Amino acid sequence: MGSAETADYGLLSPAWAGTRAAALTSDEALLQAMLDVELEWLRVLASAGLIDSRVPDAVAPACQASRYDAADLAARAQGGGNPVIPLLADLRAIVREEAPWAVGPIHKAATSQDILDTALMLMSSRALKTVLDDVHSAEAALGGLARKHAGTVSVARTLTQHSLPSTFGLKAAQWLHGVGQAGAALEAVAAALPLQWGGASGTMAALTTAVQQGQAKPLELAADLAARLGLADPLAPWQTNRLPVTALGSGLADLLAAAGKISNDVLLLSRPEIGEVSEPREAGRGGSSAMPQKQNPVLSVLIRSAALAAPGYAAMLHAAAGAADDERPGGSWHVEWQALRQLLRLAGGAAAKLAELAAGLSVNGDAVARNLALAGPLVVSEKVMARVAPLLEDGVPGQGKKRVQHLVSLSLAGEDFAALLRAEVPESDLSDQDIAQLLDPANYLGQSDALIERIVSAYPGRKRP
Amino acid sequence: MGSAETADYGLLSPAWAGTRAAALTSDEALLQAMLDVELEWLRVLASAGLIDSRVPDAVAPACQASRYDAADLAARAQGGGNPVIPLLADLRAIVREEAPWAVGPIHKAATSQDILDTALMLMSSRALKTVLDDVHSAEAALGGLARKHAGTVSVARTLTQHSLPSTFGLKAAQWLHGVGQAGAALEAVAAALPLQWGGASGTMAALTTAVQQGQAKPLELAADLAARLGLADPLAPWQTNRLPVTALGSGLADLLAAAGKISNDVLLLSRPEIGEVSEPREAGRGGSSAMPQKQNPVLSVLIRSAALAAPGYAAMLHAAAGAADDERPGGSWHVEWQALRQLLRLAGGAAAKLAELAAGLSVNGDAVARNLALAGPLVVSEKVMARVAPLLEDGVPGQGKKRVQHLVSLSLAGEDFAALLRAEVPESDLSDQDIAQLLDPANYLGQSDALIERIVSAYPGRKRP
Amino acid sequence: MGSAETADYGLLSPAWAGTRAAALTSDEALLQAMLDVELEWLRVLASAGLIDSRVPDAVAPACQASRYDAADLAARAQGGGNPVIPLLADLRAIVREEAPWAVGPIHKAATSQDILDTALMLMSSRALKTVLDDVHSAEAALGGLARKHAGTVSVARTLTQHSLPSTFGLKAAQWLHGVGQAGAALEAVAAALPLQWGGASGTMAALTTAVQQGQAKPLELAADLAARLGLADPLAPWQTNRLPVTALGSGLADLLAAAGKISNDVLLLSRPEIGEVSEPREAGRGGSSAMPQKQNPVLSVLIRSAALAAPGYAAMLHAAAGAADDERPGGSWHVEWQALRQLLRLAGGAAAKLAELAAGLSVNGDAVARNLALAGPLVVSEKVMARVAPLLEDGVPGQGKKRVQHLVSLSLAGEDFAALLRAEVPESDLSDQDIAQLLDPANYLGQSDALIERIVSAYPGRKRP
Amino acid sequence: MGSAETADYGLLSPAWAGTRAAALTSDEALLQAMLDVELEWLRVLASAGLIDSRVPDAVAPACQASRYDAADLAARAQGGGNPVIPLLADLRAIVREEAPWAVGPIHKAATSQDILDTALMLMSSRALKTVLDDVHSAEAALGGLARKHAGTVSVARTLTQHSLPSTFGLKAAQWLHGVGQAGAALEAVAAALPLQWGGASGTMAALTTAVQQGQAKPLELAADLAARLGLADPLAPWQTNRLPVTALGSGLADLLAAAGKISNDVLLLSRPEIGEVSEPREAGRGGSSAMPQKQNPVLSVLIRSAALAAPGYAAMLHAAAGAADDERPGGSWHVEWQALRQLLRLAGGAAAKLAELAAGLSVNGDAVARNLALAGPLVVSEKVMARVAPLLEDGVPGQGKKRVQHLVSLSLAGEDFAALLRAEVPESDLSDQDIAQLLDPANYLGQSDALIERIVSAYPGRKRP
Repeated sequence: MGSAETADYGLLSPAWAGTRAAALTSDEALLQAMLDVELEWLRVLASAGLIDSRVPDAVAPACQASRYDAADLAARAQGGGNPVIPLLADLRAIVREEAPWAVGPIHKAATSQDILDTALMLMSSRALKTVLDDVHSAEAALGGLARKHAGTVSVARTLTQHSLPSTFGLKAAQWLHGVGQAGAALEAVAAALPLQWGGASGTMAALTTAVQQGQAKPLELAADLAARLGLADPLAPWQTNRLPVTALGSGLADLLAAAGKISNDVLLLSRPEIGEVSEPREAGRGGSSAMPQKQNPVLSVLIRSAALAAPGYAAMLHAAAGAADDERPGGSWHVEWQALRQLLRLAGGAAAKLAELAAGLSVNGDAVARNLALAGPLVVSEKVMARVAPLLEDGVPGQGKKRVQHLVSLSLAGEDFAALLRAEVPESDLSDQDIAQLLDPANYLGQSDALIERIVSAYPGRKRP
Repeated sequence: MGSAETADYGLLSPAWAGTRAAALTSDEALLQAMLDVELEWLRVLASAGLIDSRVPDAVAPACQASRYDAADLAARAQGGGNPVIPLLADLRAIVREEAPWAVGPIHKAATSQDILDTALMLMSSRALKTVLDDVHSAEAALGGLARKHAGTVSVARTLTQHSLPSTFGLKAAQWLHGVGQAGAALEAVAAALPLQWGGASGTMAALTTAVQQGQAKPLELAADLAARLGLADPLAPWQTNRLPVTALGSGLADLLAAAGKISNDVLLLSRPEIGEVSEPREAGRGGSSAMPQKQNPVLSVLIRSAALAAPGYAAMLHAAAGAADDERPGGSWHVEWQALRQLLRLAGGAAAKLAELAAGLSVNGDAVARNLALAGPLVVSEKVMARVAPLLEDGVPGQGKKRVQHLVSLSLAGEDFAALLRAEVPESDLSDQDIAQLLDPANYLGQSDALIERIVSAYPGRKRP
Repeated sequence: MGSAETADYGLLSPAWAGTRAAALTSDEALLQAMLDVELEWLRVLASAGLIDSRVPDAVAPACQASRYDAADLAARAQGGGNPVIPLLADLRAIVREEAPWAVGPIHKAATSQDILDTALMLMSSRALKTVLDDVHSAEAALGGLARKHAGTVSVARTLTQHSLPSTFGLKAAQWLHGVGQAGAALEAVAAALPLQWGGASGTMAALTTAVQQGQAKPLELAADLAARLGLADPLAPWQTNRLPVTALGSGLADLLAAAGKISNDVLLLSRPEIGEVSEPREAGRGGSSAMPQKQNPVLSVLIRSAALAAPGYAAMLHAAAGAADDERPGGSWHVEWQALRQLLRLAGGAAAKLAELAAGLSVNGDAVARNLALAGPLVVSEKVMARVAPLLEDGVPGQGKKRVQHLVSLSLAGEDFAALLRAEVPESDLSDQDIAQLLDPANYLGQSDALIERIVSAYPGRKRP
Repeated sequence: MGSAETADYGLLSPAWAGTRAAALTSDEALLQAMLDVELEWLRVLASAGLIDSRVPDAVAPACQASRYDAADLAARAQGGGNPVIPLLADLRAIVREEAPWAVGPIHKAATSQDILDTALMLMSSRALKTVLDDVHSAEAALGGLARKHAGTVSVARTLTQHSLPSTFGLKAAQWLHGVGQAGAALEAVAAALPLQWGGASGTMAALTTAVQQGQAKPLELAADLAARLGLADPLAPWQTNRLPVTALGSGLADLLAAAGKISNDVLLLSRPEIGEVSEPREAGRGGSSAMPQKQNPVLSVLIRSAALAAPGYAAMLHAAAGAADDERPGGSWHVEWQALRQLLRLAGGAAAKLAELAAGLSVNGDAVARNLALAGPLVVSEKVMARVAPLLEDGVPGQGKKRVQHLVSLSLAGEDFAALLRAEVPESDLSDQDIAQLLDPANYLGQSDALIERIVSAYPGRKRP
């Protein structure tokens, strides 16, 4: 089959197709990561005097992913069950042509799992740089929104219904809170992505034999390789202990959940009847060919789709980790690879879209105010209850509360709440001004400002250059 | 970005890469399905006299997937959130070049969701033909194994421990039972994959307007399209009722579970210490470059990996269906596409590998017998208990059972069970021949033959030509 | 530990706590089902003349779940890994007290898995009756809503934005479509829930031995048991082929997805800014202690929570099925039990709440009309495009479309669409009345009536008595 | 309905029923946690001088979970959608009886979500103490196994097949590695479980009003409450940012995966044909009533069942987090509760069983040696290849490798490998002693010792007192 006949470019995955993450997680990117691992290992061996020092440079030209036919390798990978085997065959064939004397040391003392696990970590590390870059941009934009709208009094909603006054700034700050927490956790995971290097069965036996006459120590060679690849040096091989994979998966799923929360809110708030926000209008985004008047919140739609997919992928990683057995598991190891890649892609796509969304989101202050007004004075009924009920107690415990509830009912039926209060409470207890202040939502914002400041200070973000 | 830079050929998915299912579910295959839907709809309209009858043939040359750049379409799909929008733009551009007068009717009264949902069903239908073809081959081979080994007495295992005698034939028959049930259910799903045709909001409004002056009826036109595409005519549009998708997903997951069960057994039974079966040896399969003596059960490894991934994908489809809202859901619709495609690929890959595995599985009768012998006479202790305990009751209820249990303990400690029985039970109650027959596992196979026959008759399979 | 100390009554599961399904799936209900299976099996054996015909009646008094300490049994179940083992010990102990001569035949030729699998099917069957009863009530109510609001013109929404005119009746009909399809599929599953009867290793060996001298045939005895329990007689034991379990799980998940879709819509439409529907107000429902004015759509909240949980449980069942091995799997069998029960509970709770919701849902026609009006004439722009563009073509292909798009832009900017059309199109082509009719959403409902009728006829439902 | 009729004691969950975790996560335990939060909040308010200082002690007697009817509360929880509402009603009713003057301040400025989220963290914190206690016991026992068997040469297995020599000690060390990593991560999560305190909509508005005239600051009061409950003080309310919940869920799932890996190995290694380990025999464990000779590895079976369930529950938590919207989500919040509790239970049950398993696992050295011998000299073929191929090169690159592969084939066919080597390689290159050493698996253990030491030092565990 030709390449095009079996290719998947993400035509069914608009959440990430066409983003930087797509290119950083493609088959070609994976090939490059595997070739980088093989080449750096040769440099480690050469540097330790274990192989001819000219080998790495002789092999380097063959370590260009673009020289390989990924579709063909993919098809051949089913023979041995992993892509390292056919890649090695082709790598050796190329080097045999170009520098036959350098073929021998290739892949020395390594095993397929060393290469593939490490390459997956390397590919993840590269993709995460982009993901986190976009997260920082989103943080900066959300922080800006939060501070800008610290005074935009809005109606909070719980279980879909209007509850209390709040501010649009606090909503944006809480968006930032979610993304910031997940981003920080993911940053820690990214910094700890480990090398996997254990040889055929996790004992480093071949390597130990290879260094027997020399000075080099196997665990130090592995540490050197980790350093060269920018990966962490693990306590021990982790061929059957998959926490590095599940932790990365959970971190990505957490980021997608935080992004998903934001997308849900934007989808709600940009409904025509609510209209508090609208997505940035950009050429080519959100149009509908059939209905020319329509502008769809496509960024949020796609972020949401990514968030909906994440739990299933994270579950695959946990299932795989728990199904491991022996010194290399048959099947459970194999299922991780694509699940992890999909999570990277989804997180990459969602982060890019979130950065775009946060930077360009329009807030319609009029609509915010209109919806708050729709809630009416009842939005402060909690406060009224606390302030007025004691005034109406008349020595009968609980009576004040009941009387305020009665006023609320009348208000729900259409009567003016301020007038009702006026009629019920003596002016000596509650002046007209007191009532006005009591009913002003802007006077019932609690710690909105303090919380915004706390959150924005904790996650300041960094704008993309 | 160039195509190769973002392509995924399945390099991390050896369970399906390189199989027929890979080609039938590629981006190109999806493009072809979408183009087929657009073209057949033009034929429906022409046949109903609603458009110029020459349009379909004029548009047909543009409806070749190979004329499109799938990578570019994928990248552009994020603009509007689905691949139909850029595809339509390119389709119209081509036709505008080649037959400008035929551009107008393209996509008439249709909406993106009509095209994409229907194309997914069409692609599924095509891929399922291959899947079911391989299922039938596997059934035939498993049925053959079941009958061939109806008399191969083996040890059954429950909770990993030896339990009772059974036959390898019954094991193979139960493998067939699983695959057969799942295959039959999937066949029913495949026969009912429906057209989706509702227009922009599920009312068929544009189509209703389009046919207003004519004889054609919208629901009949939709039925005509379904028939031309080989799909079922649904009761109503199902843009927000995703049972057709979840049912397909569950059916595929069921097939993968049945295949997974078999792979688990083969992985166990081909362990060196057990050795009852071995996978077919074929050039390029299962070799290990590092360890020349090793032959890995790669088919089972890959089938198992596919089975481990399936629950997560099926969960995505259920999550998407339950998250739907409005007349077209934002996000939950979008997450279905890739999840469904992955299930098709995994089922396709697993079915192909299962057919190969079933056809070439070697059964090592010596090992089967050796493992049964290892279990010793205790494998029939259930039967001995039933037969001998009453003979040792001596009028004390429960005493017979205790005495047999004591004999079993002695036997576990190394004593000869037959001799123990001989010493305990008078020959008048149990002759030497009785004891020999009692302890012969082949005399304690229950309904093994009848069950094999029932199952093989129910799922006879069809060999691939 | 005392019972209360470890009990879970559903305090964290308000979606189903307190419903009929809760009682039908409790530990006590499961105990009863297991005892029923043991007792009916004695009746089968007695009826076949294989045991003393008085045994069943002698054992029957001991087969009352209320006589057992479920908490204690649960704690002891971890010894052997399943609840049948301690239950049998207690059952035999009771009978030993009350009718010692009848102890022997209890559980004859059966195995734990036979009892537990069959009891789970029996418990499922009983719970499904309630589930389906509620589904039929919901269908009847939704059908009523659909017909009642066939003429309530509303605005359809796609990707959260206003798209075309539709009717509230069609929305309700599509709700019915989802529930009806899932309900019908579940009804088919319910009718096919099979007995599991294979003996210790699926060969029916003990039973075969037991009947050797008599006339009874093992498979016929199993069929008799199935009939007595109201279960289907399976082709063969399915101790490792878990399609009966996964199919039930998928069916329940499908119902929950259909219910979830409805709950999402009700949550959206009952938002204060939209206000098209409100949940039935009933004493004790939806109140908020802190905010007296608040009425939460609690039924939908809880239905939605159930729908969100379902995919995870269904995934557990698929994971378990695919992890099976041997003749009885260690671990994967065990994980099914609670997952299946939770799905039954969630479906039972959701169906009950859906029936209540559908029967009492208020539709606010004014709000429906107001939201449609908010969409303005642009909601028919698709139709205007189709009708007017050809009139403005002036021989330049595509020009008409562009001119209409221009009018739409002007309208979006605030100009009157009817006036714009009037100014652009000669009265001879389009009379004032034509324009009025063209812009009336009620004239652009497509097949709304026909689809409502199709769906309501297909799923007429049955009111609960 | 009576309590017993709806109770679930874990009869279908032998993985955790009857463990300490069961009691620490029961409805009663949850009630106690909610009551503790209400009471401690009163202490915070009293301590800040915001309420009568005698209130807490007056309310304390009512804050005993055993005074409440959990089944009744569960049923009533569906009215408002959460258990706090009916609990508060009953709490107030009791206090109204016993100290009416103390009713007023109860739940002051708090909201249901504050109480329930915080109570879930508190219950989790309490349950995690037990979980981690068992983890530390398991670590200590696994570390002991690792060191004890550092010299027990065994055969490593990859993809089910024999690969290289290793040691049983390294296998146990890797088990420890998995559990230790997951345990350490979970410990960090446990130490950071946060208070949730935001009031009705996350602004702390009611609290801010309540303290307006005093010295107390709302965020400090919240910090005081956190300290009193032993929880972390969060940056901000997290009513819609569920990372505290998903991180806990992922940590529990990781622990279950690590435990699952061990259980898979024990299940494999305790198969009769392999026989390298056996579970501790304890009264009441693992027996089979039907088959007296059978001893099932029940601990591993139940640990495995817990590991199989975990991914689905973790997926529910991620799905819930990503589905959040507004200032309190309808449905997605509600689905978390039971999923989180089930993960705590499963982790608690699995950790207890793992501690028991690790402490009592028998290692059968003879079987370990027998299986290694079964692998034959080929288990060191990797080493032979590295050592001998260069000796057979004869100047033709690659020829040495081919010749060794030929010897391996002959050996697989039954010939003596040592003799083959002797015949092929001159004694000057390889003495008889060299061959013997080369073929001794004990000489090919790589870094086994070093890795064991590294891992055991990193996770020393603590024995349970």
